Amino acid sequence: MTRHTPRAIIVIFGATGDLANRKLYPSLYRLYRNHKLSDHFAVVGVARRPLTNEDFRNNIKKSIADFQDDPIDHDAFAAHFHYNPFDAQHLSEYQKLDNFINQLDDKHQADGNRLFYMAMAPNFFGPIAANLKSQGLTDNRGWSRLVIEKPFGHNYETAQQLNEQIGQAFSEDQIYRIDHYLGKQMVQNIEIVRFANAMFEPLWNNQYIANVQITSSEVLGVEERGRYYDESGALRDMVQNHMLQIVSLLAMEPPAKLHPDEVRYEKIKVLRSLRQLEEKDVNAYFVRGQYDQGEIAGKAVDSYRDSNGVASDSNTETFVAGKFMIDNFRWAGVPFYVRTGKRMAKKATEIVIQFKDLPINLYKDKGDTIDPNLLVIRIQPDEGITMHLNAKKTDYETTSTPIAMHYNKADQNTESPEAYEVLIKDCLNGDSTSFVHSDEVSLSWKFVDVISKVWMNEKADFPNYQSGTNGPTQATELLAQDGFHWWEIN
Amino acid sequence: MTRHTPRAIIVIFGATGDLANRKLYPSLYRLYRNHKLSDHFAVVGVARRPLTNEDFRNNIKKSIADFQDDPIDHDAFAAHFHYNPFDAQHLSEYQKLDNFINQLDDKHQADGNRLFYMAMAPNFFGPIAANLKSQGLTDNRGWSRLVIEKPFGHNYETAQQLNEQIGQAFSEDQIYRIDHYLGKQMVQNIEIVRFANAMFEPLWNNQYIANVQITSSEVLGVEERGRYYDESGALRDMVQNHMLQIVSLLAMEPPAKLHPDEVRYEKIKVLRSLRQLEEKDVNAYFVRGQYDQGEIAGKAVDSYRDSNGVASDSNTETFVAGKFMIDNFRWAGVPFYVRTGKRMAKKATEIVIQFKDLPINLYKDKGDTIDPNLLVIRIQPDEGITMHLNAKKTDYETTSTPIAMHYNKADQNTESPEAYEVLIKDCLNGDSTSFVHSDEVSLSWKFVDVISKVWMNEKADFPNYQSGTNGPTQATELLAQDGFHWWEIN
Repeated sequence: MTRHTPRAIIVIFGATGDLANRKLYPSLYRLYRNHKLSDHFAVVGVARRPLTNEDFRNNIKKSIADFQDDPIDHDAFAAHFHYNPFDAQHLSEYQKLDNFINQLDDKHQADGNRLFYMAMAPNFFGPIAANLKSQGLTDNRGWSRLVIEKPFGHNYETAQQLNEQIGQAFSEDQIYRIDHYLGKQMVQNIEIVRFANAMFEPLWNNQYIANVQITSSEVLGVEERGRYYDESGALRDMVQNHMLQIVSLLAMEPPAKLHPDEVRYEKIKVLRSLRQLEEKDVNAYFVRGQYDQGEIAGKAVDSYRDSNGVASDSNTETFVAGKFMIDNFRWAGVPFYVRTGKRMAKKATEIVIQFKDLPINLYKDKGDTIDPNLLVIRIQPDEGITMHLNAKKTDYETTSTPIAMHYNKADQNTESPEAYEVLIKDCLNGDSTSFVHSDEVSLSWKFVDVISKVWMNEKADFPNYQSGTNGPTQATELLAQDGFHWWEIN
Repeated sequence: MTRHTPRAIIVIFGATGDLANRKLYPSLYRLYRNHKLSDHFAVVGVARRPLTNEDFRNNIKKSIADFQDDPIDHDAFAAHFHYNPFDAQHLSEYQKLDNFINQLDDKHQADGNRLFYMAMAPNFFGPIAANLKSQGLTDNRGWSRLVIEKPFGHNYETAQQLNEQIGQAFSEDQIYRIDHYLGKQMVQNIEIVRFANAMFEPLWNNQYIANVQITSSEVLGVEERGRYYDESGALRDMVQNHMLQIVSLLAMEPPAKLHPDEVRYEKIKVLRSLRQLEEKDVNAYFVRGQYDQGEIAGKAVDSYRDSNGVASDSNTETFVAGKFMIDNFRWAGVPFYVRTGKRMAKKATEIVIQFKDLPINLYKDKGDTIDPNLLVIRIQPDEGITMHLNAKKTDYETTSTPIAMHYNKADQNTESPEAYEVLIKDCLNGDSTSFVHSDEVSLSWKFVDVISKVWMNEKADFPNYQSGTNGPTQATELLAQDGFHWWEIN
């Protein structure tokens, strides 16, 4: 289906920011180029800085400069963009903005639909949302929707506050919380692998699956984001959102329909089924790490504590490994291990489903050890699916050898839409399946807060892993105590 | 394990024949070259023709001429070969042969072990076996074994006679009936795929498998074998043995051990569970075909009835398609379709396991039709395994697209042992797992005889398929009436 998105005015708060320039404009451009956007769209760029329309459009054109080989008129695209300088704290500015949107709506015949996109510092999310409502910007003729970026709060309490603030202005079905992992092609593939293949669903439970491993590793350190990152850490930055979202997609029951409500309801049920940790359990289920200096690609690199903006005795984790137990009929007893960190050996996000061992190894007498079957979903940078099976070794004897069968998404020879492209299009279409529900936010913070609390109170023995390695030894022990090990897939 | 085979004298009846020259000598050579044979082996070539040892050894060297790049002394290999001219009908010749074997045993220190290999016209199998016994050739110091080639009779009755004749001279565990399909690497892989992968066994039943399709197609016609083939036909030549053996391997219960008795017992159980056809059912379960002229690779080819040695009104089938039902708990309701023929569109032997459809297609509203999952085992000429699954289409929408994941045996970069190599080695080692038990012979003839009888009594409407096609339309209808179709896999 290649239908156009509905007509709409897209209002981007934080229009001069990094996210807008790096992700939103290029994604809008790609949608435009691929004829996915209605011709009746306009973007209002909102930010504090005083800019002329021309300045703004030059920024837009700069952000899409990579696409210069396209036979598309960049000026014609940029002509859809309009700038509106804005001070979020002055109510009168909202009136002005409302008028401006209305003018553009008339000009572009946008049917009165409004998408407000919050791509700015999170402390403004709540107040702006409230003012949009109080100043009448949501009393428009068509629909109005609110897109917000992470972080959704810093813990359960602040997330609740934020949900309440925006909830006063927008109803839950108007709110689109972005977790850009949900827009990634191979994350969306989890659903297809599970529900479009009759082979997998019968095996997708504690009878046949031994454990699930989700790894999201980066090679880079915090680089220039030290000040922000030191307040956050890997648990909040990666586990509370991306990792738990992937766990939910892997563990959810098949929905009755692919309706956003049905899918999100099933994901919420997974989060409700998570075994809640008590403070005393935290260190048995979760381990943290912080990188020391080391070597990456033959080059010496500094430690986290030596980074710009980071306290020299920082207690912030740059690595987390943990075990989620989902105490329901399907998953009882099956650990979902996650692992994420900076300055690790390679950059990769991937899922390994490890199937249980054979009930009996018929080849034992032949000295054959048999590897368990693995289903690997490679999310990035390499996108695809691999199955690790056993086949006959080419030999006179009937013995087995591990084989790998690959599907590489690149073989489809189709340019992959970017996560943001998919998500912007979904939001314009009113499809919230790949957006985060407020209950998901609340439940995941609730889970994570216990860990944060324990880790805040117990000073860690940091740094505890060398840059360029796969994290601290405790991450290995976490699995070893269950009789498993991390699969290092290449 | 690369242990040597035990010391032995190998006595080949039919030593000047086609099978010996084309298969046995090259296979013995490869075993020799790969250091699989004990150095203490000798081959006695037995045939009617008067040949000197030198003539015989020249034949041997000619049969392995393709291996001239090997750094192996072909003369040294040929020196293990000795010729013994022989008239099977004169008992005195057996005495002479016995003495000759004993001499060679002394010379080669072969421990008194004897392997008698019947590579000749089948009408001699029984009498020779009986004479070997009566003339004391099986009263040797070590073990003695009998290898016999197909055909094992022409129907149940003649097969029983043969089994009884050789059974008087050799016990069942001394008899090695060759079905060379069982020596093929990818046929042996069926066992590994099933019993070395925890993923498949839970799905390997009527709950998850819709049907199984086994195709063995040839492009060639009968060529110069018209006279032989016209007496036999595809049902006897392919279905009674190779196809039913593959059905057994696919359908058998997991054995308690990989012991020959255990494995063959499980295979026999499958044959016992076959739904026996009554004469009135035959044409509902099996269809036959005979090729007409047509075109292969752009070249006109003649019809079967125009072939050398074939009657111009021949009723012999060159194509069979059929449906086996296995009426046990595991397979009730799952058709095992087989299809084999000459002058078909391509040369290939492969197995397709078609899994059942999804319980519900969540993607129907998106206009998505979802292909069933297929596991394809490619036996020849291309050797490997392919899984046909569904994955996300690279697109903005969450829709599915069929994907194929391949394992190509060639990737192991190891030269594949030939079927005969594996089987000779197994026999020398006393491993009868990949040989056919007398019960298997009896049961498969019993099944097939009903079909033969009906087809003999009803004149077929031949020819009924063009050369270069996939057989008569009835083969398509056979599956269509069950709601299935043949998967033409490339």
